[in-house]
Amino acid sequence: MDRIVDSELELRERIHTMRLRGEHLGFVPTMGALHAGHMALVESAKARCRHVVVSIFINPLQFAAHEDLGSYPRQLERDTDLLRDAGVDLIYLPQADQIYPTAFSTTVTVNGVSEGLCGAVRPHHFSGVATIVAKLLNQVLPDAAFFGEKDYQQLKVIERMVADLSIPVQIIPVPTMREADGLALSSRNCYLNEAERKIAPALYQTLVQCAKRIVAGESTTSALAWAEGQVLAAGFSRTDYIELRDAQTLKPMADYKAPARLLAAAYLGKTRLIDNIAVE
Amino acid sequence: MDRIVDSELELRERIHTMRLRGEHLGFVPTMGALHAGHMALVESAKARCRHVVVSIFINPLQFAAHEDLGSYPRQLERDTDLLRDAGVDLIYLPQADQIYPTAFSTTVTVNGVSEGLCGAVRPHHFSGVATIVAKLLNQVLPDAAFFGEKDYQQLKVIERMVADLSIPVQIIPVPTMREADGLALSSRNCYLNEAERKIAPALYQTLVQCAKRIVAGESTTSALAWAEGQVLAAGFSRTDYIELRDAQTLKPMADYKAPARLLAAAYLGKTRLIDNIAVE
Repeated sequence: MDRIVDSELELRERIHTMRLRGEHLGFVPTMGALHAGHMALVESAKARCRHVVVSIFINPLQFAAHEDLGSYPRQLERDTDLLRDAGVDLIYLPQADQIYPTAFSTTVTVNGVSEGLCGAVRPHHFSGVATIVAKLLNQVLPDAAFFGEKDYQQLKVIERMVADLSIPVQIIPVPTMREADGLALSSRNCYLNEAERKIAPALYQTLVQCAKRIVAGESTTSALAWAEGQVLAAGFSRTDYIELRDAQTLKPMADYKAPARLLAAAYLGKTRLIDNIAVE
Repeated sequence: MDRIVDSELELRERIHTMRLRGEHLGFVPTMGALHAGHMALVESAKARCRHVVVSIFINPLQFAAHEDLGSYPRQLERDTDLLRDAGVDLIYLPQADQIYPTAFSTTVTVNGVSEGLCGAVRPHHFSGVATIVAKLLNQVLPDAAFFGEKDYQQLKVIERMVADLSIPVQIIPVPTMREADGLALSSRNCYLNEAERKIAPALYQTLVQCAKRIVAGESTTSALAWAEGQVLAAGFSRTDYIELRDAQTLKPMADYKAPARLLAAAYLGKTRLIDNIAVE
C-alpha cells in the first residue's frame, strides 16, 4: 500500500487501522527540505514507536508577509525518498486549501513562552505554529510527537499548548544536530553563500564560550555583551537577540541559575540563523 | 464504582477503560445549575451513545470582570443527583486550579462567527468558551459532544473550532427547551423576580412574530424595528441586539434568505436573556 496520503480522510482511515492493532504511533511534523536534523527526529520516533507518521506542510500561517514563504526550499521528491528509505510508515502531504479552507477562522495563541526572542520580531509566528501543530496532532492522534531543540522557543510553545489544552500526546524533544564545525542544521542554511557558510559556525561557537563564561561566574550582562561583539566581529551583520532565559518558562533571567538556556538569532546577509544551548 | 471523578488522571483512566470496550462515548459539557434543557442534552447523548460523560465546570475564562461569575447559580448536590438519576456514567467535576494551573497561557480564538451579537458586548467570552471546550474535548475524547441551540452563537463557534482544528468529535446540536409560555430554559432564569418572569416570554413570542413577518416578505429593517419596539413595550429595559443572520456563518443578512436565524439579547432588570429561532 502506498505510503503517501494527501487527504485528512485517508489519513484518518490509515491511522485508524494502525490504532485497531493497538500500536504506538509516533509523529514528526515538518515543513520538508529535510536534513539530518529531521532524520534524527524520525530515528527518535522509530526507536520509541511501532509506527511513524511524518507530515510535510509549509504552513503559511507562520510566515509574515515579508518573510520567505515563497522561497522556502521545496524538494518533495527527495524528501519522500528519504522518508521511505528511513522506513517511515506514512507520509502526510496535505494541501493548503484542505488545511485552511476559506472559512477557516481559528487561532491558538500561547502567551508567555512565545513572548520576546523570536516572538518579538515574528509577532504572529508562534500562533501560526501552535495552530497548525494543534490541527496536525488532532488529525494524526499520535502517542508521541517529536520536535527539535533547534527551535527551542517553538518546542516550549508546543509543550505549553499541549499541557494547557490537555492534548493527549507526549512531546519528545530531540537534541540539535550540527555540522562538524558546530553549525546547527537548518533548512535555511541553503541560503548561505560560501563566504557566509564559513562565518556561520561562529554563532554556535560564541554561544558555547558565552555559556562557559556565565557558568564560571561572569555577569550575564558582561557575557552577553561579549557574545554580541564576537558574533558581529565574526561577520554577522546584526543580531536579533542573544539572551539568557529560564530553560522551562523562557522567562528572562538576569542572574544565572540552572536550568538556563542561551538563545540567539543573528543575520548573515539576508539569512536569519537561530541557535541555542543549555547553560549548565 | 463511584460515578464522580474530579481529576484529569482519573478521568482518563476511566474513559480509557470504556474505550477498550470499543463503546461509543457521548459528552455533555455544562456549568451546572442543571435544568430540563441540560437534561435534553443528556437524553440526546444517551440515545446516540453507549456511555455518557457530563462535566460541571463554571469556567472563569468566559466571564468578564463585571459579569456574574461569583453569583452564577451553584447546586452541585442537586446536579449530581439529577445526572445519576438520568443514568449518566461519569460526572466530571474538575477544580479550577487543575484546569487552569498558574502557568496556563493558551487561548483558542475563533474569529468570524464570534463577532457581533453576544461577542460585541462580551469581547473575551467566546475565546473563553472555545478554550475550555477544546480542553474538555481533549480530556474526555468523546465520539460526540452535545450543545444546546439556546446558545446558538456558542454552538457555531464550537462547530467552527472543531472543523478548523480537526478535533475528532461530532458536534450534535439539540433544540432549545422552553417553558409552556415559550421562555427558553436558562440557568439565569432564576435571577428573575415574579414580575420579570411574567414579562420574559415576550422575547420568544416577539421573535416568532418577527420571523413570520420576515418570511411573509416584510423588510428585515422594518420587522426588526417592530420587534425592538415590542420587546421594550413588553417591559424589557433594553436590548443588546435583535438581528437576522446567516444560520451557518452568522454573517449579517440584510435581505432574508434561508437558512437564516433570528437572534436576540435583552435585559429584564439586571438579568440578560438571550434567545434565537430559525427563520423558515
